[in-house]
Amino acid sequence: MTDWNSLYASRMQGVVASDIRERMKLLGASEIIHLGGGLPDPAIFPYSALSAASAAIWTDPVRARTALQYAPSEGHAPLRQWIAERMTGDGAPCTADNILITNGSQQGLDFIAKLLLSPGDKAMVEIPSFIGALRAFDAYQPLYIGLPQDSAHWDAAALGGANFCYVGPDFRNPTGTTMTLGEREALLDLADATGMALIEDGCYEALRYDGDAIPSLLKLAIARHGDIDKAPVLYTGTFSKTIAPSLRVGWIAGPAHVVRKLVLIKQASDLATSALNQMLLLDVVQTVLDDTVTRACVVYRERRDSMLAALGEAMPPGVTFTRPEGGLYVWAELPPAIDATLFAQRALTEHHVSVIAGAAFYPGGTEVTPGQRRSFRLSFSMIDADLARDGVMRLGELARRMTLESA
Amino acid sequence: MTDWNSLYASRMQGVVASDIRERMKLLGASEIIHLGGGLPDPAIFPYSALSAASAAIWTDPVRARTALQYAPSEGHAPLRQWIAERMTGDGAPCTADNILITNGSQQGLDFIAKLLLSPGDKAMVEIPSFIGALRAFDAYQPLYIGLPQDSAHWDAAALGGANFCYVGPDFRNPTGTTMTLGEREALLDLADATGMALIEDGCYEALRYDGDAIPSLLKLAIARHGDIDKAPVLYTGTFSKTIAPSLRVGWIAGPAHVVRKLVLIKQASDLATSALNQMLLLDVVQTVLDDTVTRACVVYRERRDSMLAALGEAMPPGVTFTRPEGGLYVWAELPPAIDATLFAQRALTEHHVSVIAGAAFYPGGTEVTPGQRRSFRLSFSMIDADLARDGVMRLGELARRMTLESA
Repeated sequence: MTDWNSLYASRMQGVVASDIRERMKLLGASEIIHLGGGLPDPAIFPYSALSAASAAIWTDPVRARTALQYAPSEGHAPLRQWIAERMTGDGAPCTADNILITNGSQQGLDFIAKLLLSPGDKAMVEIPSFIGALRAFDAYQPLYIGLPQDSAHWDAAALGGANFCYVGPDFRNPTGTTMTLGEREALLDLADATGMALIEDGCYEALRYDGDAIPSLLKLAIARHGDIDKAPVLYTGTFSKTIAPSLRVGWIAGPAHVVRKLVLIKQASDLATSALNQMLLLDVVQTVLDDTVTRACVVYRERRDSMLAALGEAMPPGVTFTRPEGGLYVWAELPPAIDATLFAQRALTEHHVSVIAGAAFYPGGTEVTPGQRRSFRLSFSMIDADLARDGVMRLGELARRMTLESA
Repeated sequence: MTDWNSLYASRMQGVVASDIRERMKLLGASEIIHLGGGLPDPAIFPYSALSAASAAIWTDPVRARTALQYAPSEGHAPLRQWIAERMTGDGAPCTADNILITNGSQQGLDFIAKLLLSPGDKAMVEIPSFIGALRAFDAYQPLYIGLPQDSAHWDAAALGGANFCYVGPDFRNPTGTTMTLGEREALLDLADATGMALIEDGCYEALRYDGDAIPSLLKLAIARHGDIDKAPVLYTGTFSKTIAPSLRVGWIAGPAHVVRKLVLIKQASDLATSALNQMLLLDVVQTVLDDTVTRACVVYRERRDSMLAALGEAMPPGVTFTRPEGGLYVWAELPPAIDATLFAQRALTEHHVSVIAGAAFYPGGTEVTPGQRRSFRLSFSMIDADLARDGVMRLGELARRMTLESA
């Protein structure tokens, strides 16, 4: 009899189902107000443009053949070219050679970790961090180092030895916070001083609802070093939040010599991303990307405003929360006496509201502050403002009750 | 300045671009007769069925939403169900819980290696093996053991200690050869005796042109152990060879408890396969899978027959070749004096015919026989019989010349 447990690789030790993904399976449960998952709102997807793009492929025999045959591992050349031109126009000069198409930015994070991490290597991450990045990195068994929250402590002597630092500069998941220009420059200084790479998760960059855009680390690095091929940054982008997730098209942008290595990883991992989906995507971004992003920003801005207003009304003194300028998430911190994991459990079972307790977002083996242990994530992306407001009111009631119970 | 080479993981040592993939980039070069790459013929893809399936999704708002939102990591439930029912009907009883959808079977091989291999673990493979499997496994740094060609040497005492054995029982890439029923039973005996897992690559199984189907290892293991959940086999399937590669839909079938682990790997690697592509695929397999396979078999059978006839005419004495009952490949062995790598180079540069020298298919660190060093792979899948015949005639001329030169 095969004892499968004895055959599993060491990377599988302690790997358990993600609370968030398991919870997302509950999405059909209509009685629950879902403030946990951060799916994009399907009402925003550009259906008619995709339908037209699709019909245009099937009615052109040459394009239909291309759409169904294996694509190059690097990605569909015209899409790589379009992304390079778009990024160049946005202030990050690059060519198609700097672009690898991936199945969403999640696959980009997996490939970068596969490229850069041997077991025991040091990986620096913000605390808390995007859970999907942590799970991607976990498979390559790094030792995690927390990037200090205060950039005054970004000291090369103390923080050396990491192979990379992973950050989400704009409205990052889970906190919704944004790195200042000064912090971005300081992080580039740290990379230059330590020789580590920077992984920049740009997945929410386009979803800014107010305030001025701040240049990406990649842009700043190109300006600093004169050429993307000399930049220490690998940027992961995606169309999952701006067009639709299930086309599964994202990209990595970085030095061409690094992209060539990543292409070999793509080949060995799943050969290529769907040509059909890349062609659909290219057609649609050329016609409706900007409009779709504009519409998404209108919808999400209103929901964010409503959620922040509801939090202000509902929450008792001692609860604090972030005020994101974009993205899909708000991060709240409960008063000292309340444990966030218990809070999230009671929110679901007693009040039928889902939120994600902060514990899910902390990398194994790093120190977490008491405030972080009392934190949880809310998302305003998926449900309408009134329903979300109802959910936040219930959370406020629970926070008051738990505050009283602990008094 | 970031020294990227110093940051690359140890798994990247010695990783270079695949000769085959690089050569596939030449596919546009019209003056070359391509007997190297084994792409399916795009003339066989079911365009009108896919076009209709596509239109049906875009005209149904509920289905369109499902098609564009994140799919479950396990895969689109109705597709998993369909695959399970199909496999059950084919003699491998299973349920949707035994099925994980992957981006083609290549991703299935990557995930299984990610699940089962820590650096230095032993992985048993046939020699030669599918190059895509070797590249997928390489990333997890196994020590390779060759499965002896003669099953009389499949001895548990000599071959113990491997975490898995990877095999392609039907018309495997690159040799086109098929395991007998006795060999399959002997391999199951070896797995039972050593406790290793079996990875069964089923990607060509449907493309049988003559002879009787032989039960898959998975079927035999279910019959032997009474239940797929007790089978030592993980089976990788794909629609890349039967419908179209660029939908990027394949699957892993195996014990449900192992599939649950693989789902976690899928989550961390790229979250989910495109819902759109899974829905397109499901629609099409329900209506035209059997017809498409039948048509493919007619086309490929004729090309195989033509290629075997041409090889028989063209090749000088001392050249041997396999006679595959299905699949896309023929494996040829040159006379003792001719090196296959040089032969392939001269075939391309002097005769404008591409073939793949055997060296690409041998795993690092294993012993290769002199006959294997003199071998090369031809594919009959992509080009019409007359052109392929011309190519084989040129190869025969080269083999004669190199035989004379070495005399």
